[in-house]
Amino acid sequence: MKVGVLGTGVVGRTLATKLVGLGYDVLMGSREAGNEKAGEWLASVDGRGATGTFAEAAAHGELLLNCTAGVASVEALAAAAAEDLDGKVLLDVANPLDFSRGMPPTLTIANDDSLGETLQRTFPQARVVKSLNTVNAHVMTDPGRVPGEHVVYVCGNDETAKRQVEELLRAFGWRQIVDLGDISGARATEGVLPLWVRLMGVLGTADFNFEIRRA
Amino acid sequence: MKVGVLGTGVVGRTLATKLVGLGYDVLMGSREAGNEKAGEWLASVDGRGATGTFAEAAAHGELLLNCTAGVASVEALAAAAAEDLDGKVLLDVANPLDFSRGMPPTLTIANDDSLGETLQRTFPQARVVKSLNTVNAHVMTDPGRVPGEHVVYVCGNDETAKRQVEELLRAFGWRQIVDLGDISGARATEGVLPLWVRLMGVLGTADFNFEIRRA
Repeated sequence: MKVGVLGTGVVGRTLATKLVGLGYDVLMGSREAGNEKAGEWLASVDGRGATGTFAEAAAHGELLLNCTAGVASVEALAAAAAEDLDGKVLLDVANPLDFSRGMPPTLTIANDDSLGETLQRTFPQARVVKSLNTVNAHVMTDPGRVPGEHVVYVCGNDETAKRQVEELLRAFGWRQIVDLGDISGARATEGVLPLWVRLMGVLGTADFNFEIRRA
Repeated sequence: MKVGVLGTGVVGRTLATKLVGLGYDVLMGSREAGNEKAGEWLASVDGRGATGTFAEAAAHGELLLNCTAGVASVEALAAAAAEDLDGKVLLDVANPLDFSRGMPPTLTIANDDSLGETLQRTFPQARVVKSLNTVNAHVMTDPGRVPGEHVVYVCGNDETAKRQVEELLRAFGWRQIVDLGDISGARATEGVLPLWVRLMGVLGTADFNFEIRRA
């Protein structure tokens, strides 16, 4: 399957490498063609992929992954031709964190809205599924590095799209996938980021996640 | 030790009962004396406590527990005489949730502020510690009902006050207590509530909590 990965940061590169390893045909897109980090990524996977613009990634992928910075995601998706989003599953793993005022970051969209909802509202032709945004890139693609039955969440308005994303998550190694319902569940998972950031400081590692324990 | 419990809801009554069982001298305060739920609570503990106004609870307690609805907490504390808050530990277990627009509730304070910070700012003479707000009343007072090493958070500006609250938490049965730093950590824990509310729906129970798993 062809996947368009939008974003060249650690999250985009780590996910793209995992997808290549699983046999997906990946094109990594950035704001401008010839992005240095995209080039380094392509070399790191021995050329088993392609790089290009956001628009080219959107045109290439049957499945699209939003791995851009949350504060730049709408602009990145807007670079795609409308027909290149039409009906496609857009897996949004980004968080709308603003680091410009120092640590800890705040959310630029929060509480009664979310980035996931914003993307679905702005690009109604896409089928947005929010997932993976509550863990770091290494846990996203290798959940087994953290012990226990820790969870990943999915939410979105399209059931078929969620099932397709869950299939990908299982291929990554996820066993505990919790469906939070429609895309407004993104408020809940993006809202965890302030706690996640603080815990990273307290624990001294970003390789952690939460297991739900119940009576 | 004398404890003033502000609030007569499930959280206030459950905590007050637990405290009575542990030998604390509890006065439960409400907006007006003669509150029916406070009276029912007092009967349920065979009169081993007292009831009164918010001001009387603040005057009575060496330790104060804010168990009022988060949207009414500032008003409740404002009913106390300033000298009755002076130097006292104020354990804030409330969440500023607004249910007036239906489910899911939104937070009335969020992201770059929190109820915990608001209370500390408004009542600088008190030593505010935020804790227990990420679990329901039954898990607060009986964490053993949920299996595993699930966590409770504390945060606050005063180290001695946090240690005192941690002692109380251990008396309740808590084993995993994570110190998130100063009172701005309340943003992080209050921010979990939207996820908590959704999970309650998905899991069909409020008796759950999170265990941190790390690599």
